[in-house]
Amino acid sequence: MINEKLLHSFVINDNFLGRYGNLVTDVVIPYQEKILKDEIPGVEKSHAVENFKAAARVVKTGHCDDEFYGMVFQDSDVAKWLEAAAYSLIRRPDPELEARCDSIIELIGSAQRENGYLNTYFTVKAPGKEWSNLCEAHEMYCAGHMIEAAVAYYEAMGKDKLLTVMCRMADCIYEHFIDEKAPGYPGHPEIELALMRLFYATGNEKYRELSGHFIDVRGVDADFFKNESAARGWTVWGNGGDPEYAQNHAPVRDQDKAVGHAVRGVYLYSGMADAAFESGDESLINACRTLWKDIVNCQMYVTGAVGASYEGEAFTKDYHLPNDTVYGETCAAIGLIFFAKRMLALEKKGEYADVMERALYNCVLAGMQQDGKRFFYVNPLEVIPGISGEAATHRHSLPQRPEWFACACCPPNVARLLNSISMYAWDVQDKTVFSHLFVGGVLDVTDETGGCIEVLTDYPVSGSVKYIFHPSAGKMQMTLAVRIPYWSQNTVIKRNGEPVEYVPQNGYAYIEGYFAEGDIVELETDMSIRAVFASPKVSADSGKVCIMRGPLVYCAEGVDNSGSVLDLSVRKDGLKFCSEKADFYGNYTITVQGFRTEAVEGLYSFDRPDKVPCDIKLIPYYTWGNRGINQMRVWMPEWSC
Amino acid sequence: MINEKLLHSFVINDNFLGRYGNLVTDVVIPYQEKILKDEIPGVEKSHAVENFKAAARVVKTGHCDDEFYGMVFQDSDVAKWLEAAAYSLIRRPDPELEARCDSIIELIGSAQRENGYLNTYFTVKAPGKEWSNLCEAHEMYCAGHMIEAAVAYYEAMGKDKLLTVMCRMADCIYEHFIDEKAPGYPGHPEIELALMRLFYATGNEKYRELSGHFIDVRGVDADFFKNESAARGWTVWGNGGDPEYAQNHAPVRDQDKAVGHAVRGVYLYSGMADAAFESGDESLINACRTLWKDIVNCQMYVTGAVGASYEGEAFTKDYHLPNDTVYGETCAAIGLIFFAKRMLALEKKGEYADVMERALYNCVLAGMQQDGKRFFYVNPLEVIPGISGEAATHRHSLPQRPEWFACACCPPNVARLLNSISMYAWDVQDKTVFSHLFVGGVLDVTDETGGCIEVLTDYPVSGSVKYIFHPSAGKMQMTLAVRIPYWSQNTVIKRNGEPVEYVPQNGYAYIEGYFAEGDIVELETDMSIRAVFASPKVSADSGKVCIMRGPLVYCAEGVDNSGSVLDLSVRKDGLKFCSEKADFYGNYTITVQGFRTEAVEGLYSFDRPDKVPCDIKLIPYYTWGNRGINQMRVWMPEWSC
Repeated sequence: MINEKLLHSFVINDNFLGRYGNLVTDVVIPYQEKILKDEIPGVEKSHAVENFKAAARVVKTGHCDDEFYGMVFQDSDVAKWLEAAAYSLIRRPDPELEARCDSIIELIGSAQRENGYLNTYFTVKAPGKEWSNLCEAHEMYCAGHMIEAAVAYYEAMGKDKLLTVMCRMADCIYEHFIDEKAPGYPGHPEIELALMRLFYATGNEKYRELSGHFIDVRGVDADFFKNESAARGWTVWGNGGDPEYAQNHAPVRDQDKAVGHAVRGVYLYSGMADAAFESGDESLINACRTLWKDIVNCQMYVTGAVGASYEGEAFTKDYHLPNDTVYGETCAAIGLIFFAKRMLALEKKGEYADVMERALYNCVLAGMQQDGKRFFYVNPLEVIPGISGEAATHRHSLPQRPEWFACACCPPNVARLLNSISMYAWDVQDKTVFSHLFVGGVLDVTDETGGCIEVLTDYPVSGSVKYIFHPSAGKMQMTLAVRIPYWSQNTVIKRNGEPVEYVPQNGYAYIEGYFAEGDIVELETDMSIRAVFASPKVSADSGKVCIMRGPLVYCAEGVDNSGSVLDLSVRKDGLKFCSEKADFYGNYTITVQGFRTEAVEGLYSFDRPDKVPCDIKLIPYYTWGNRGINQMRVWMPEWSC
Repeated sequence: MINEKLLHSFVINDNFLGRYGNLVTDVVIPYQEKILKDEIPGVEKSHAVENFKAAARVVKTGHCDDEFYGMVFQDSDVAKWLEAAAYSLIRRPDPELEARCDSIIELIGSAQRENGYLNTYFTVKAPGKEWSNLCEAHEMYCAGHMIEAAVAYYEAMGKDKLLTVMCRMADCIYEHFIDEKAPGYPGHPEIELALMRLFYATGNEKYRELSGHFIDVRGVDADFFKNESAARGWTVWGNGGDPEYAQNHAPVRDQDKAVGHAVRGVYLYSGMADAAFESGDESLINACRTLWKDIVNCQMYVTGAVGASYEGEAFTKDYHLPNDTVYGETCAAIGLIFFAKRMLALEKKGEYADVMERALYNCVLAGMQQDGKRFFYVNPLEVIPGISGEAATHRHSLPQRPEWFACACCPPNVARLLNSISMYAWDVQDKTVFSHLFVGGVLDVTDETGGCIEVLTDYPVSGSVKYIFHPSAGKMQMTLAVRIPYWSQNTVIKRNGEPVEYVPQNGYAYIEGYFAEGDIVELETDMSIRAVFASPKVSADSGKVCIMRGPLVYCAEGVDNSGSVLDLSVRKDGLKFCSEKADFYGNYTITVQGFRTEAVEGLYSFDRPDKVPCDIKLIPYYTWGNRGINQMRVWMPEWSC
């Protein structure tokens, strides 16, 4: 489960993730608002707000003189923006932004039909066809995002206008699928996790029931979408209902491999974990664990990217992790974080938070340009200008972040995640406070433990995290459960300067006792530069090595390395001779010793090309592509002499 | 140019390519004949012969009661079979096969219309639409293949029935495009080179003119196919006329990169080289040279495969040579051989014959199973069961040779090439005999030099090739130009046992003089096992090495290496410790020292996985996939300790 209360109880004051949050508030949200309102010249019109206006006119007049524009899920852009704006308003009140949000919410409400139904595509473009194309038409996907926005805005401002609207829509869905027993389930999962948030926000059991219903019926009839497609005689984009694509090839409890469209997958698994947490259903918990293991043990990049296949933006086969043709959608990494956080609700195992961190600090952050103005949807681990973005098999894999896309799924998803990091950084369970992610700020756990915890850190630049205790009165009796990151070889925990003996339990050090004002627990992670080796089953990484420092994956870019990186190999013992320098977007670059293979004439040579010793400069992967188009590589061959 | 006379003047008696020729005659041609006649139960019907029968009924009765079956270019299957059968009949007379060929030729003739037009698709399925879909409908592609069959059958049996039929069809095409000045050119080049063969067979200048016309007008209007597509309102498979796909993006003399569908490309370039040879047009010769260099220096696999992209079965970008997702169609390697042979007509440079050999002994031979019963269309350099043939991006790249396809382009193409090797092995120019490929047999050059040359060799198993001279009387005054292969480090040439001093000119040693009965020139190539290194610009081969022995590329298969090869690396100095053994389909296997990387838990590890010394057994690439489904790899990482 996701706990929105943390948005209030943890106030971020942090140079790293905090800076990203500010960037979202200062740059991304205003820019996206202009996009949604078609106010940016030269950018393809979104018409997302215009669609709601058109739908409102239909609701008011009963007839339609307008056209729907954009993707069938255009509504969700508005929803994700509203959700991000809500989080932003918690962190930094802004009456003008609030007023504009209220006005958009007013508009959304006016686009709702008498019976609660809300969707501009069907209201404007395809009235009468509601619920007849669950496979493609994203009706419930849009509803799910708007429900999340409603819950977020309610949590942020205490205003329930949108919450009421979305409860009515949820009731409308309930009526159709539960009361009237209509068959089917969403083509694109998302509403499952959203309904659980609505359930937590309202306490209304119907929403938990509806979420559980969609999870239970999914895939029982694997041909549902195929039959629906055959029966309806109209289509959005001709998805014929391949069962694996939308994870309806089997009942969810029988699914043991992550398959199909990756974002659909991780959203579904998140909803399953939510349902499992509430019900305690062991078969569902086990399915979640099995799918999790399949992803992280067989289908996840070192950056936390998932969904390796650009055909179908999909999960693929075990150990199939190409670095150049990868899809690795930013939204899929975000969904993996959703899934991880919900698995943490089921069981406090550090590996879930480890993956959350891996995906966040590498794939997701790489998704956004350092100035917040451009975004990657696809996150390659190798870029070759001339091939990337150009060859038929690489058209999706761009060498630089593009302008805002007509399909704007990723940027607002990045925005809402980076502005709601508080929900992912912590869990509070009775008197135990779990520190999953290391973010500076102040956590108010007065209700649970009688005080606040202040966190001082410049993580991940350095590896030190100080927890300073501030009881309201007397002492805080509690346990601080600190994640011991998987990448830290020698992790020291000090209490008031004295090292604490600890035995990690499932990846957490549990520091318990009474904490007085000013008591300090300090986590000292080991940020030594480390070489990472992939399983020899991963063909793309054969003979190669990747460099990490703390949670950050590093990469080489041509601009730092005389123009080319494909010809570089890392010296086997190169880490003995490496250095780091805090000179790049406030973070460290790393220099390792290696070799440059000299060019040969033509394609093939019987003469061993010379390997000339050289320094290789590496930058954090999340910063790649900020200095123009050039070669980039995460996995580099290793060479020993 | 291609010289069909060599089919008669060089009688093959050879254990290697000769065995392949026999396999074609004994297995492939009879099997394919049954396919064409729909006589094999369980295999998707070809209907290719049936289509001719249907067309004959239309021609006879004027109306059509039948349906056309198969691909729009189904006729070409019959053509390629007839061409292969013709070559087979030269090598091994077979009155029954000849009678069946005559009967099919009779049928083909009866499907020809009064005006000479011959095409079963248009006659049966789309009468009235002739010449309106040059982009997709393969009208001239089919005509080209049938012209090649006609020339071959005329050369083989001296029978001109089919030649006359195809002259009438060529005249019909001439009338349309030259006399009536219809715009356009073939969507799939092939007729250009075929018309040159028809010109050489008949001496009729019209055919040379028509071939040159198609080459000259191609790409002058790059939008021709697009406009044609927009105008006609019907389609075969919805190819919208992308200019690069069919190499009509620019006039051929301005083309400097091999782009688009690879088979189309190499067929076109072959036709260009033919035209350039006849005309001496320097701009055309230079375009051929430029395209050649682009292919071999930037776009060719070490196996001679070309067309790396499975999207469009196409050429792609420089140095983009993925080993697993490669298309590398067998037909494209065959077309590269056509192109190479025609470049040899333009200039006697060993590099053309080197590439011819590379493509033939590796990619093309790998296309056929050792028993002649199954064929690869796609020729990967890395196969991973579970991914190859299964992942969305690897569906085309099968781990074992499939049964005959409905689209049967490759098997008959392999058949006609392997049964006409004589045309590729030699060139005779005045009194100089060029030995391009090393094949055992007897070459009759009495007309040119007054005798025969007998070749004794078991190449490529061993590297010795003996040329024994048999003058009709007295001595043969001539020059024997022997190719010095690019892979041979120390090539010795002996004349009657005594080493000959020679300075290779453009890759050939010219041994001239008077040769008496029994004189022997012996070529001793150096078949040492060699390591090959790819340009560091080829991302897929970074840090990797490939092993060759003579002209043969080697690969590792799981079946010889404890089940897996992805975890193997070749010891840097491993070639010092290698051995070879003649134990595999009559050829050598190679054992090199290397290492096996031990499995790690999960996907990524900070612990360097152990590398355990091991032997790696390698087999010739052309023999891969003959022992069930298993991992295969050509390029393996190198490791030094």
